[in-house]
Amino acid sequence: MTQRLVVKFGGTSVADLDRIRVVAGRVAKMAGDGTQIIVVVSAMSGQTNQLVEWTSSFGQLHNSKSFDEEYDVVVSSGEQVTSGLMALALQELGHKAKSFQGWQVPIITDASHSKARVQDIDKEVLENALAEGYVVIVPGFQGITEHGRVSTLGRGGSDTTAVALAAALKADRCDIYTDVEGVYTTDPRLVPDARKLDRLTPEEMLEMASLGSKVLHTRCVEIAMNYGVKLQVLSSFIDKPGTLITDEESGVEKPVVSSVAFSKNEAKVTIYQIPDKPGLSARIFGKLAEENVNVDTIVQIIADQDRHTEISFTVGVHDMQRTQEMLEVLRAEIGFSHVSAEGNIAKVSIIGAGMQSHVGVAQKMFQTLADNNINIELISTSEIKVSVLIRQEHTDLAVKALHDAYGLSGSGL
Amino acid sequence: MTQRLVVKFGGTSVADLDRIRVVAGRVAKMAGDGTQIIVVVSAMSGQTNQLVEWTSSFGQLHNSKSFDEEYDVVVSSGEQVTSGLMALALQELGHKAKSFQGWQVPIITDASHSKARVQDIDKEVLENALAEGYVVIVPGFQGITEHGRVSTLGRGGSDTTAVALAAALKADRCDIYTDVEGVYTTDPRLVPDARKLDRLTPEEMLEMASLGSKVLHTRCVEIAMNYGVKLQVLSSFIDKPGTLITDEESGVEKPVVSSVAFSKNEAKVTIYQIPDKPGLSARIFGKLAEENVNVDTIVQIIADQDRHTEISFTVGVHDMQRTQEMLEVLRAEIGFSHVSAEGNIAKVSIIGAGMQSHVGVAQKMFQTLADNNINIELISTSEIKVSVLIRQEHTDLAVKALHDAYGLSGSGL
Repeated sequence: MTQRLVVKFGGTSVADLDRIRVVAGRVAKMAGDGTQIIVVVSAMSGQTNQLVEWTSSFGQLHNSKSFDEEYDVVVSSGEQVTSGLMALALQELGHKAKSFQGWQVPIITDASHSKARVQDIDKEVLENALAEGYVVIVPGFQGITEHGRVSTLGRGGSDTTAVALAAALKADRCDIYTDVEGVYTTDPRLVPDARKLDRLTPEEMLEMASLGSKVLHTRCVEIAMNYGVKLQVLSSFIDKPGTLITDEESGVEKPVVSSVAFSKNEAKVTIYQIPDKPGLSARIFGKLAEENVNVDTIVQIIADQDRHTEISFTVGVHDMQRTQEMLEVLRAEIGFSHVSAEGNIAKVSIIGAGMQSHVGVAQKMFQTLADNNINIELISTSEIKVSVLIRQEHTDLAVKALHDAYGLSGSGL
Repeated sequence: MTQRLVVKFGGTSVADLDRIRVVAGRVAKMAGDGTQIIVVVSAMSGQTNQLVEWTSSFGQLHNSKSFDEEYDVVVSSGEQVTSGLMALALQELGHKAKSFQGWQVPIITDASHSKARVQDIDKEVLENALAEGYVVIVPGFQGITEHGRVSTLGRGGSDTTAVALAAALKADRCDIYTDVEGVYTTDPRLVPDARKLDRLTPEEMLEMASLGSKVLHTRCVEIAMNYGVKLQVLSSFIDKPGTLITDEESGVEKPVVSSVAFSKNEAKVTIYQIPDKPGLSARIFGKLAEENVNVDTIVQIIADQDRHTEISFTVGVHDMQRTQEMLEVLRAEIGFSHVSAEGNIAKVSIIGAGMQSHVGVAQKMFQTLADNNINIELISTSEIKVSVLIRQEHTDLAVKALHDAYGLSGSGL
């Protein structure tokens, strides 16, 4: 049966004409045996920044709908250029190749300009082109609203385009080509013997993405998970397999912990002596969401006998002061006693689909940190993840020690 | 009654964000009294060249339809960027402003990618936006084919977009803002006291455009003429009236000759002793057209008693050798005796709607050239134009002498 692949190339992979030709060469090879190929391309690196810079000159208009609409018109042009050049590079190699912009497919999104979500993809145009033997090129990042306006999907949006196309066209796999060789057990810049993972479950990848791993965008992994798209992350510069993200059984036992993730520059905010009445948390976090403060890990405890509670949560350190100010406004209304905030916080997490069926995994984490005299400020767990907040200056030591403790270094599973 | 204007700004007028803001300021002023404005913009200067350069890297594909299709995808992005930025600059000044790409209007063209012709414009989308009080921005140069592919109109295409929109939307006037103050009696770089013309007929402008005046593209003037669009050419840098191109009577008597046009770098080709049989000219010029040789002024005379004819015509000097070679191939088939070709030829023309009703206009031209010892190689006339071929080195002298002879210098009509 004919194979069908979606392959996505990011900005550094299509940085200039030479690189575009290299990518076209790889695509031509894939298409050589009759495999149907849908190529998703980002803007040539630097182009998007230039376009964003131009629009940001109109800074006072930011966050208005009419600004976002025109922002999308301007910024989406970068991917348009690459898609046309990629089609030409494939034609040069003797292949039938044709570009289809987001509005030509069409890729329908909601009307949240500059951060739109894909709602539907019409398959017909692309299916016809594939049936006629074309290599199809679709610029990433672009869509069209039901009002016929150009939309963009926000940063990381090209990955989302690729996986959404793979879901709609029922591709056998979606390969995300990038400038790293795959997903690592932890950041190799920090731990030199970090190991490339051969496979991961989508759930693990999702935890890593939401914990700040830049390899894949959260939304992209969500779609892959929901539609059962088999994803691969691999290097566009080196010709070898990357990391496969799939639920399929590999035949090899799952490792208990597959990776150590971390994010620095967090702040911990604690609200003390909140009256234990229904709806107050919703009121607090609703206010923060309204003001676009991204709240992460939330922990709530009953702090004393008179049924007051205490809530701790993390925000990006750049939002810390603003968060304190907003909470101060809510103090009288809600009736809590006071707020404390602390910057210089890091979050370190261990992730692994295998930990569901193993006891003592979290305990080993706490012990390892204790052995290294690292104090834990807060703990939060999910079925496949344990996160702790620690002081930022301990991040490197903590990550290295945990990477070692769970046996993630070196070769082999 | 509400006025409606189409205003078009070229690449140098929107060269960077500062200039885009200056243009937005002018448009805002026009729109201030409730006038409905449709703004047509070119790409920021330099952008189109960059985009064309990228595509020309795939030179071996040139002239294939699949190349031209993707060329249009890439190159049309330049105007897209300006249209979004112009909308933002107008929003910044407190105006409702929205961009519509060629495919959104839509501006329907034929399928001659990279040099498409506008076939139809759907008014509805733009009429609705104008009725809602929007200043409408349309990128020039772009269209969409009936197959839903992006097309471009070729160089000078933004002027064509503007005048076609003015025709479709029945605008009161179409103002083409450029880097000159209007249309001159001749090239001011050659004749310093050349005068800006206050008005011209479309027929005169058409002759000037086809004679190489770069102010307006032929196609743009043709549409203005056919649909009765009142055109104005004016400076985007200086705030004063330009040249009005209209058939309307001004109340002032038409000047006999309104301008002197010229083009250098022509070659004269002569074919001798062609048998006087029907269809041979069609055969000759058909062959040249097939090979994309642009043939200008053609003169045919009965050269001798045995009913042989002689044909002279001009081509661009860069096409001279190719033309000779092609004719050599046809020689046996058609049976002419031989071909001569001469480079270093210039064409100088006097143009004026007034000459239709005046005798002696051409005679004064020939006399002026004779007085200056300039030999005429060939003469060709139309109702509002007399063109002569002369040796290139005489161009400057001829233009100055004619400009003077017809009283075109200085102020006043």
